[in-house]
Amino acid sequence: MRTIKAGEERRKEILLTARKLFVQKGYDQTSINDILKIVDIAKGTFYYYYSSKEEVLQAIIMDIVYEGAARAEQILQDTSIPLLKRIVMAVMAQAPEFEGAHKLAEELHKVDNAKLEQQYRKVMLKKMTSVLEGAVKEAGEQDIIHTDFPKECIESLLLMGHMMFDCDTFLWKAEEYPVKVKAFLCNAERMFGAKEGEFQEFMEMFE
Amino acid sequence: MRTIKAGEERRKEILLTARKLFVQKGYDQTSINDILKIVDIAKGTFYYYYSSKEEVLQAIIMDIVYEGAARAEQILQDTSIPLLKRIVMAVMAQAPEFEGAHKLAEELHKVDNAKLEQQYRKVMLKKMTSVLEGAVKEAGEQDIIHTDFPKECIESLLLMGHMMFDCDTFLWKAEEYPVKVKAFLCNAERMFGAKEGEFQEFMEMFE
Repeated sequence: MRTIKAGEERRKEILLTARKLFVQKGYDQTSINDILKIVDIAKGTFYYYYSSKEEVLQAIIMDIVYEGAARAEQILQDTSIPLLKRIVMAVMAQAPEFEGAHKLAEELHKVDNAKLEQQYRKVMLKKMTSVLEGAVKEAGEQDIIHTDFPKECIESLLLMGHMMFDCDTFLWKAEEYPVKVKAFLCNAERMFGAKEGEFQEFMEMFE
Repeated sequence: MRTIKAGEERRKEILLTARKLFVQKGYDQTSINDILKIVDIAKGTFYYYYSSKEEVLQAIIMDIVYEGAARAEQILQDTSIPLLKRIVMAVMAQAPEFEGAHKLAEELHKVDNAKLEQQYRKVMLKKMTSVLEGAVKEAGEQDIIHTDFPKECIESLLLMGHMMFDCDTFLWKAEEYPVKVKAFLCNAERMFGAKEGEFQEFMEMFE
C-alpha cells in the first residue's frame, strides 16, 4: 500500500510541475527534461507514468475538467442562491480557474494544440452536462424553466459558452465581449423558457 | 493574360484532383506524388502553386466555405419561400454538399485534422454570418423575429449547427439525432423570438 501511495504522489508531482512549466514557459518550450529536473526523477521513472509530454498534457486536461465540474457541483449545492442563478453560475464555472489558468488556456488554444482543445471540449461537455442535468430537471419541476429539451439546453449553453468565451472562435475584439455576453444570457433565458428578465441581474453586470 | 489563365486552370485542376483523392484514399494516404501523376505535372510545378499538401487542403477548405456561402445566398434570394424558412435553410446550407462531401468531412474531423477543422470553423462562421446578416435584419423589420441580438443569434445558430451536426462534438448515437435536431429548431425559434410553432414544419420532418 505504501508503494502505491508514493506512486500516486509522484504522479501528482509530475502533473503539478508540468502544469506550472507549461504556464511559465509554454507547452512547446517545455521539455520532459525540464520536468525531470524539478521533480528530481530519472527519465525511466517519468516513462513509467507517462509515455509522452502530450500524455501529461492530456492528464492535466482531465484534471482541469474535473476541477471545473467540482466547482459547478459546489455551486449547485448552495441552496442560498436561487436555482436558476445557480445553474447559470455552474455553466460559467467550467472555464479553468486557477493561477495561470489563462496562460494555460492560451496554450490549449494555440493552433498547434487544436487536437488537445478538441479533447478538452468533448470530455468537458460530457462531464458538465451530467453535473447540470439534475439541477435543470429540478428547475423544470419547480416551474422556473419551461422547455421540452432541458438536457439539450444545457448542452447548447455549455457548448456556446466554451466556444465563444474560452476558445475565441469568433475572433471578437475585447470591446465586443459585453454585448456578446448579454446576448448569450438573453438567449439562455429564452431557450430555458424562463420568465423574461430573469437573467437581468447577470446582464447588468455587463452594462 | 493567356499565361495567367492557364495558371488559374492548373491551380483548379490540382485542387479538384486533390479533393477527389482525399475523399477516395483519405488525406493521410494521399501523397503529393499521387496528385502529380493524375494532373500530369512536375513536382516543381506543384510547388509553384502550393508549398505543401496541407496548403492544398486549406485551399479546399476555403472552396468548401465559399460553396456553402453561395448556396446560402441563392436560398436567401428565393422570395417564393417565407423569409424565416429561408434563414433556417441557409443556416443549414453551410454543411459541405457535394459528391464525397461526407467522406471529406470525416477526414476533416479526424483527431489529427483538428487544426484544419478549427480553420474551417473560423472561416465558415465569419463568411456565413455576413451572408445571413441582411436577411435577419429584414426579418426583424418585418416583425417576424424579435430580438435585440440578431447577429448574435445567427452566430450562435451557425456555431451550434456546425458543432452538433457536422463535428460530432457530443458523440451522439444515430438514434439521438432526431430529438437533437428538434431541440435545435425549438431553441432557434425561441432565440429569434419568432411566433411559437413557426418552425413546426421543420420539426415535423424529424417526427
